[in-house]
Amino acid sequence: MKYCNQCGAPVSLKIPADDNRHRHVCDSCELIHYQNPKIIAGCIPVWENKVLLCRRAIEPRHGYWTLPAGFMEMGETTSEAAVRETLEEANARVEIDGLYALINLPHVNQVYMMFRSQLLDLDFLPGQESLEVALYAEDDIPWEELAFTTIRHSLKFYFEDQKRNNFQLRIGDIVKTEDAYEFVISP
Amino acid sequence: MKYCNQCGAPVSLKIPADDNRHRHVCDSCELIHYQNPKIIAGCIPVWENKVLLCRRAIEPRHGYWTLPAGFMEMGETTSEAAVRETLEEANARVEIDGLYALINLPHVNQVYMMFRSQLLDLDFLPGQESLEVALYAEDDIPWEELAFTTIRHSLKFYFEDQKRNNFQLRIGDIVKTEDAYEFVISP
Repeated sequence: MKYCNQCGAPVSLKIPADDNRHRHVCDSCELIHYQNPKIIAGCIPVWENKVLLCRRAIEPRHGYWTLPAGFMEMGETTSEAAVRETLEEANARVEIDGLYALINLPHVNQVYMMFRSQLLDLDFLPGQESLEVALYAEDDIPWEELAFTTIRHSLKFYFEDQKRNNFQLRIGDIVKTEDAYEFVISP
Repeated sequence: MKYCNQCGAPVSLKIPADDNRHRHVCDSCELIHYQNPKIIAGCIPVWENKVLLCRRAIEPRHGYWTLPAGFMEMGETTSEAAVRETLEEANARVEIDGLYALINLPHVNQVYMMFRSQLLDLDFLPGQESLEVALYAEDDIPWEELAFTTIRHSLKFYFEDQKRNNFQLRIGDIVKTEDAYEFVISP
């Protein structure tokens, strides 16, 4: 951030009075420009024992597989965002069962919220951001070609819980270790 | 938003290619400035059968009572944000028990995440944003002087569940009706 989006003057990084963090503050109108983490909402769309995945037509991770998910928009609830993303990326209609995974990614300032959901029909097809869309049973999931750590963990948890038919909300953080990203349970 | 925060040129509201919503787009460098909902994280800090409340020293709702909560910052997890806000607003140290209320406020583009927590000691005192800080049992809660609908519902649910010693995560939306804001359960 280099300029104030309200008056167009340059901004400087400084700690405002009564604050303890550096913020972008306008040199002219003194407006403080806060930056905050974003929510990514998505679905685990289920049909019988299979889950719907999308192969990404966009960066990052072009060509890799993901669950339908994306940035929550203004005016939405989190589950509305998850339903909308599933419609946009896979032209798929779902009914939400409930929140299933809430995953913090503090190193990229994101919070994932993934919802279990039932596919309402099989008339899905790739949206603009997808190369292909397909249903996968656990044994056929392209585990080595998944786009994001959050997606891998959401799917791993889902199939674990599916076996015992007992789904529990998973809350945790993706923590960067020396050579990997690990899921650590958090409150 | 009137100016591009990267190049300082004016922005216009338009629907970018491959998008379906109006965004602020720079007239010069064409950067798209997305806006997204924010997370407010906070605690229900408990000591025996009492909950710690803060009387607000800032607008909005100056002078009204609230649970310690505030905007999640970059680089944090949601529970870290809740712990930090409790320290900042009440100088209170807590141990988090778990996520307790997840409340969408689509009309103000916020998502509240309130955590049950145990106060670790009684050495709390008002932070910069609080006029006073105090422990309240259910019967003494200043119900008519609470700052926000989210706080009222979080407390109401907490005391309901406390009676039966069975706490369940509450997920819902605050929906504006003709003359009130109601809590509607959502997935």
